[in-house]
Amino acid sequence: MNLLRIMPAKGGDVSLESQPETDVLVIGGGVIGLAIGWRAAQQGLQVVIADPEPGQGATNAAAGMLTPIAEAAYAEREIFALGQDSLRRYPDFVADLQRATGLSVGYRQSGTLQVAYDSDDLAVLAEARQLQESFGVQLQQLSGRECREAEPMLDPSVRGGLVTVDDGSVDPRLLAAALLRAAEGGGARLVRQRVTEVVCTAGRASGARLADGTVAHARWIVLAAGWQSAGVPGLPPGIAPPVRPVKGQIIRLRTTAAMTSAGLPPGLLRRTVRGTVRGSGVYLVPRESGELVVGATQEELGPDTAVTAGGLWQLLRDARTLVPGITELEFADAVAGLRPGTPDNAPIIGLSELPGLILATGHFRAGVLLAPVTAETIAGFLRTGVPDPLWRAFAGGRYQASSQAAARKPEEETACR
Amino acid sequence: MNLLRIMPAKGGDVSLESQPETDVLVIGGGVIGLAIGWRAAQQGLQVVIADPEPGQGATNAAAGMLTPIAEAAYAEREIFALGQDSLRRYPDFVADLQRATGLSVGYRQSGTLQVAYDSDDLAVLAEARQLQESFGVQLQQLSGRECREAEPMLDPSVRGGLVTVDDGSVDPRLLAAALLRAAEGGGARLVRQRVTEVVCTAGRASGARLADGTVAHARWIVLAAGWQSAGVPGLPPGIAPPVRPVKGQIIRLRTTAAMTSAGLPPGLLRRTVRGTVRGSGVYLVPRESGELVVGATQEELGPDTAVTAGGLWQLLRDARTLVPGITELEFADAVAGLRPGTPDNAPIIGLSELPGLILATGHFRAGVLLAPVTAETIAGFLRTGVPDPLWRAFAGGRYQASSQAAARKPEEETACR
Repeated sequence: MNLLRIMPAKGGDVSLESQPETDVLVIGGGVIGLAIGWRAAQQGLQVVIADPEPGQGATNAAAGMLTPIAEAAYAEREIFALGQDSLRRYPDFVADLQRATGLSVGYRQSGTLQVAYDSDDLAVLAEARQLQESFGVQLQQLSGRECREAEPMLDPSVRGGLVTVDDGSVDPRLLAAALLRAAEGGGARLVRQRVTEVVCTAGRASGARLADGTVAHARWIVLAAGWQSAGVPGLPPGIAPPVRPVKGQIIRLRTTAAMTSAGLPPGLLRRTVRGTVRGSGVYLVPRESGELVVGATQEELGPDTAVTAGGLWQLLRDARTLVPGITELEFADAVAGLRPGTPDNAPIIGLSELPGLILATGHFRAGVLLAPVTAETIAGFLRTGVPDPLWRAFAGGRYQASSQAAARKPEEETACR
Repeated sequence: MNLLRIMPAKGGDVSLESQPETDVLVIGGGVIGLAIGWRAAQQGLQVVIADPEPGQGATNAAAGMLTPIAEAAYAEREIFALGQDSLRRYPDFVADLQRATGLSVGYRQSGTLQVAYDSDDLAVLAEARQLQESFGVQLQQLSGRECREAEPMLDPSVRGGLVTVDDGSVDPRLLAAALLRAAEGGGARLVRQRVTEVVCTAGRASGARLADGTVAHARWIVLAAGWQSAGVPGLPPGIAPPVRPVKGQIIRLRTTAAMTSAGLPPGLLRRTVRGTVRGSGVYLVPRESGELVVGATQEELGPDTAVTAGGLWQLLRDARTLVPGITELEFADAVAGLRPGTPDNAPIIGLSELPGLILATGHFRAGVLLAPVTAETIAGFLRTGVPDPLWRAFAGGRYQASSQAAARKPEEETACR
């Protein structure tokens, strides 16, 4: 049985537990935290996931592109390799989820078409191609005419494109719902509370204080709170991962029944289209449901989640330039999320310098893509005690040579500072 | 006491009432129907208003401009005069409403600035000025610089403008809520049902069948169902007003607290701005609440109320061109409504050729503006029995010389066909 040890807080004097019965406390219930909780629970570990609103952060505003290749233009080789690794895990990950829950997550393996709108955009695409091919990726280059053969709704002005056939997509809202059900079905317990402090015992992270003042203890604490991971109180100096909120706005449009019966594909497109339009990047992700997601802005405005007139206008302008037919689509909604950005745009996955604390954050634009590899390598470590080699390039400690804090050894359970 | 006579339907054989106790049955609970119901109830008449969703039609998507002058460019002299008459009634109308309910309706008398973006737009504005001055209106002509002095958020490219000081605005959602409360407070009864048929007795409209099959009887039937007035079953040929749905999409944006404390006016503007931007019309209506309404598309698509990507894009493009600062505003929502358009763009107000039936529909873009004059002239007729001279240009019969139907005299209560 899954037991969460919650004890009433008595000022700073919180009872110690030498053998907490919870194996893993996951702080954060986005796709990353939920996937970790699910994969860990599948191994028979006692899991608690703490999140006041699971699935409501960056996950809720994610488009769900599984496009490590197209994304490579923005990434280092290590990030690209990690994305490719995670993409290869997706078929089994989704099949397992569907077996466990009976829920679809809208998974499609339909490829990506990267397109360029004008000749300057074509130069950007050529650079992307060079980088992608240097990573050993096979790309198919298309003329403007071939782009329109592949996607008839593209504007005649589109100059050229690149097809990658392995890419896919998923519906992040469906994914989060399925992961939550699978995690709970596997024995994980969801606590709908905010974590107010990580607590330590004898120099080791040993639990977290919740909003109601109780403390949840666990042998391992996994910090998967997205951009908020940087601000979780109680961590020693240098341990909190240097993540920052990078706002992204997306729009969800919808094809009508009349369009579908006129033979147009659901969401107007057959595959994800990523384009550069007069220097501005935009993507369009169709779903079987008829939804077409248009994204995304990138804004450094701190923790601001307002959908703005300017964000909508920019997305609609660029999407309409590439695919004029979107003007006929119904507007479903617009949301903004805060991605966890890092100084080098790479995620932070693996052991921290504070014993007992595992980091799983900083996934920036790729949280949905990287959920399988993040969850499975962490679940593997929890089973074997051996850190995954894939983590090497993504340790939290890479941002500073060492941390004084790891040397501190408080003997009483307390905030870890 | 307010009694609604509702009798169970028995096929076509519905019991007759020689002295129905309801004086007025208003079909439709938008601003027009609610205002009529309120003003009639204030005179001690027994009033029933039938609408399954009062305030949810065109009212819900209206911007609430009270701008007969700026609107005159689109109107005949008679419509302009009716609008001016109604505008003059607004201060008392709003004061009465506020006294009756304690509710604010966001009424402002802050004028309108009509602006032109480029030199072609300036030519359009000059034509509008000529027309408006031919109606005897005093206008103040502004240079581009003077426009920006009046409204500092305007784009430097704005070429010139016209100020009208008498215009105002109101929040149509607040107005509908206040009218409903005032009507009910005054003794009117709201029946949240759709009317399925107008019924007649001895050649006179005598009631309406409701969705549940019961019949509500009344001495007078007022058809104020907006664009749906054309399709209410049971009317003899030639009686149904020739209204059609004209779709309009609007966007509601919102200034933030930070903007307000930085000294920007709520909604960024001091008054309603109506502009022509490269030939395309757009308006921006600020409210004290910080809301800025941007409208509106005009689309002839039948009864379609989808908010579309193209509608949003067009409105944001034009609004942003005139007032670049809107990009920082928060997006609140976007809605579409169906205005009741008529063949000559003028409303249909007054007695129909079917005895017992009063028409109050076809207000097109001006339902909020024309609510006071429509309601007060109809309430006046119900009191005095004398048709208002203002109705002369707006009779439903103007669209055809005569109607055979008015000659028919069914002796039994039945559908009036």
